[in-house]
Amino acid sequence: MKNIALIGYGVVGHGVADLLSKNADIIAKRAGDQIRLKHILTARPRADDPRQELLTQNADDIFGDCGVSVVVECINDLDAAYRYCRRSLSAGKHYVTSNKNLIATYGVELTELAARNSVALMFEASVAAGIPVLRPLCKCLSSNRVTGVMGIVNGTTNYILTQMKREGRAFDDALRDAQRLGYAETDPSADVLGFDACRKLAILLSIAFDRYVRYKEIPAEGITAVTSADITLAERLGYSMKLIAMGRLTPSDRIYARVSPLLIPHDHLLASVDDVFNAVAVSADTAGDVLFYGRGAGAEPSASSIVGDVIDIVTSGRYNDPVWREDYRPLLPADENVGPLFVRASLPEREKLLQLFPEGIAAAEGENLGFITTPGLERKLREDIQAAGIETGAIWRVFSRAEDDA
Amino acid sequence: MKNIALIGYGVVGHGVADLLSKNADIIAKRAGDQIRLKHILTARPRADDPRQELLTQNADDIFGDCGVSVVVECINDLDAAYRYCRRSLSAGKHYVTSNKNLIATYGVELTELAARNSVALMFEASVAAGIPVLRPLCKCLSSNRVTGVMGIVNGTTNYILTQMKREGRAFDDALRDAQRLGYAETDPSADVLGFDACRKLAILLSIAFDRYVRYKEIPAEGITAVTSADITLAERLGYSMKLIAMGRLTPSDRIYARVSPLLIPHDHLLASVDDVFNAVAVSADTAGDVLFYGRGAGAEPSASSIVGDVIDIVTSGRYNDPVWREDYRPLLPADENVGPLFVRASLPEREKLLQLFPEGIAAAEGENLGFITTPGLERKLREDIQAAGIETGAIWRVFSRAEDDA
Repeated sequence: MKNIALIGYGVVGHGVADLLSKNADIIAKRAGDQIRLKHILTARPRADDPRQELLTQNADDIFGDCGVSVVVECINDLDAAYRYCRRSLSAGKHYVTSNKNLIATYGVELTELAARNSVALMFEASVAAGIPVLRPLCKCLSSNRVTGVMGIVNGTTNYILTQMKREGRAFDDALRDAQRLGYAETDPSADVLGFDACRKLAILLSIAFDRYVRYKEIPAEGITAVTSADITLAERLGYSMKLIAMGRLTPSDRIYARVSPLLIPHDHLLASVDDVFNAVAVSADTAGDVLFYGRGAGAEPSASSIVGDVIDIVTSGRYNDPVWREDYRPLLPADENVGPLFVRASLPEREKLLQLFPEGIAAAEGENLGFITTPGLERKLREDIQAAGIETGAIWRVFSRAEDDA
Repeated sequence: MKNIALIGYGVVGHGVADLLSKNADIIAKRAGDQIRLKHILTARPRADDPRQELLTQNADDIFGDCGVSVVVECINDLDAAYRYCRRSLSAGKHYVTSNKNLIATYGVELTELAARNSVALMFEASVAAGIPVLRPLCKCLSSNRVTGVMGIVNGTTNYILTQMKREGRAFDDALRDAQRLGYAETDPSADVLGFDACRKLAILLSIAFDRYVRYKEIPAEGITAVTSADITLAERLGYSMKLIAMGRLTPSDRIYARVSPLLIPHDHLLASVDDVFNAVAVSADTAGDVLFYGRGAGAEPSASSIVGDVIDIVTSGRYNDPVWREDYRPLLPADENVGPLFVRASLPEREKLLQLFPEGIAAAEGENLGFITTPGLERKLREDIQAAGIETGAIWRVFSRAEDDA
């Protein structure tokens, strides 16, 4: 019998408790032992909760219980999570979290603390919830030099963009719909401005490149300025608009990373990732391109990864997951990027655009022109467009293999 | 310093040796120790081989060397691999293999032997080469009841079908092309008849369902009878023809499994998996649908997974991977399946088909008619088609969500 404790009893916390009951037989078989939920720390215990006898408002009930070997935390509060994590690891208790903010912010310090105390710190659910991606990256692709990561890691914005594409709706409309369905929060800014994706990307890149990436330095451009005209024109030109988190390691060992809308060609797998689904593509020097796809949010997918981490802890004998290395070098600027750009402009700008990019491709929709430039260094392309006096409604990046290989 | 030995020095064996040199720095960092290739067992040592001093024709050099803790095997010979594996595990040496035939045939016995000797038996490369799929299934989705697995696990046939689709070529033509490029063997029967896919499917299902599945019992239908007319008609109707390995667990705890051509709707991710790429989709009760995609064949992708297994062994303290359970129940028959069928017939059969299936959908190409029936129990549909006196050129299964959920 292994006793575990749960900190946080919101949507994900309930998902964990429910999964431990629902699949108790399978979990016990795979863990080689019964997993028993012994304490649930919650600020607001409900009198009618069926797990009444497990609820506590006092963290000492967990940390003072030598019988508890694994602490599972699913709260949003960064400071509280940080305190619980330090306390847990210092007390020799393994720690499993879905808190991306905690890991993106304190990954260096906490992985080091876990290693020093010979306990596990696991956070598979922190990126892309139910999709196995961190462990495959760490454990399966460990013989590879990873050169790039690119993914759709925010379900809210992917749902909104999918709605805009399918129904031709405006951003605000699609956002309200997402909020009504519970896919977006009342304050949606972390999702729609790209900050949530930055944290997940920072975790992915820190593992992929063996070097801590500060999420606050990742340039983020959200989807609030994307119009349904952009999406329609992109589709006409053979592309889907996606919010893409990406990072690559340059041959000179610098990291280029960004979160921004990107036009993905229809024949690329990421173009088919719609609704709340997520996907992460990894470019590795030996395995080649690998992609992981599934449900990137929700109580059940998160619980799946969290309890998977618990089972891994119970069945493992040694915990020597990588300690994150702080080796600071500034990220390359967002426009240090090679590829074509998509320009939305009014129809009369067509001639000037064609003069500048004779090989460019255009499509029209009402008064709007969508134009894909020839590939080039982004900074240079933007300068040229400005210098030619072209009035642009929007400029978005376009996926290019060249960038991927750069 | 960890010493390992390599058995088999063909394409994959060379890939492993090359990767150990190429990424020695990364591998040492992630393994926490240098990994040194100490012996290479090969039947035909070449005098000009740059790894001359490592080559041996005598297995005793490996098994008699207490300094060797991990044996990596990449040979095709089933009997020899079986002897090496037993000898290695019995001697307390960890065993890493890419040999799907070995694991599909002797998985029950060998996983039990490994557990008894407290050593690891790892075989990530045996299914879909460079794509992390077995470890994610075992380690990340371990809290889930897996209800189904469906994938493209044979690169040769996927390349041939892609060529037939893109270039309108006949099967024989596309096969010769694949042979010329080294994607198909001189004797291609194991690939094109579906037997290779059966072995990989048996491994996937044995892990997913915690019950050993005998690969020889999986009904296999290859792609030799697929014509370019079938593919063209399928495309017109909105489907791609793929060789799909699939298995599901019924609510009454029976397993339905088969390898056969299947029409996949264009908006399904598997429809976009072209050329030699592979993908495996897993339906799990808590994580939902998860998909893994990448390079399913080749020396480098295989070496990536093999050396990943070696690193995992070196960094792990305990080896308690699941022992396969022999719990024999016959598989359900292949036509115990619910979904629509695709019928190729000559144009005049159209009326009879529409009479039988008024909601059916038809497309024509020259003299050929492609027709998708309404969904139903496959056995019943086939009986009805025969009873109606319809002359069919070919009948193929069509993907259906209903089957997926059944």
